[in-house]
Amino acid sequence: MSVRNVDTLDAEVVSAGTGTTRQILIGADEGPNFAMRRFIMEPGGGMPMHTNEVEHEQYVLRGSARVRIGDEEHNVKEGDVVFIPGGVPHSYEADQGEEPFEFLCVVPNSPDQIKLVDC
Amino acid sequence: MSVRNVDTLDAEVVSAGTGTTRQILIGADEGPNFAMRRFIMEPGGGMPMHTNEVEHEQYVLRGSARVRIGDEEHNVKEGDVVFIPGGVPHSYEADQGEEPFEFLCVVPNSPDQIKLVDC
Repeated sequence: MSVRNVDTLDAEVVSAGTGTTRQILIGADEGPNFAMRRFIMEPGGGMPMHTNEVEHEQYVLRGSARVRIGDEEHNVKEGDVVFIPGGVPHSYEADQGEEPFEFLCVVPNSPDQIKLVDC
Repeated sequence: MSVRNVDTLDAEVVSAGTGTTRQILIGADEGPNFAMRRFIMEPGGGMPMHTNEVEHEQYVLRGSARVRIGDEEHNVKEGDVVFIPGGVPHSYEADQGEEPFEFLCVVPNSPDQIKLVDC
């Protein structure tokens, strides 16, 4: 099916995170080169510092968060574009409030492994 | 720079379209495998039936449009996810009204050629 609405798709809990779910919008079974996912983090939720082997190309849809990428710290909000190269440690901490932090995250169809980083 | 806001980025006119501009959010010079772009189509604007060699993974941010993909016709709106395989003819016609039709479109970093299709 070529068109679907994001709110009709299943969400799975991200075990490495807190209050975080992930939906596969276009998976590796459909897109030949990369996958599009949506992450939803409840206020105060997020993911601890970690690395992936693959890069992330992200777009913030809703809400706000503090995102660390290597030594940088950013306050991100709707309309922000985030690039995280493969292998660079990063973390997410959704701001407190009413609104969840939602973003798209596109990754290549390559093997990946998430590794938590002590900090 | 790892984080930027979409509204700070340059927009270029899409010559094959009508009332259509494109921004490169993450280009092939930065992302090693795929590029993220935002298209903005003014009400009544769009692009005629055409093919690309590469696939499109798209997410509708705002507004609504009629999108044709091969023999299918879809009315799409915010939160809709669109997959267009490489080589499949497609077109966009933004709905009339106050609001532009805006969507993200992710493509692989492969050579591409746009070909208009008679219909």
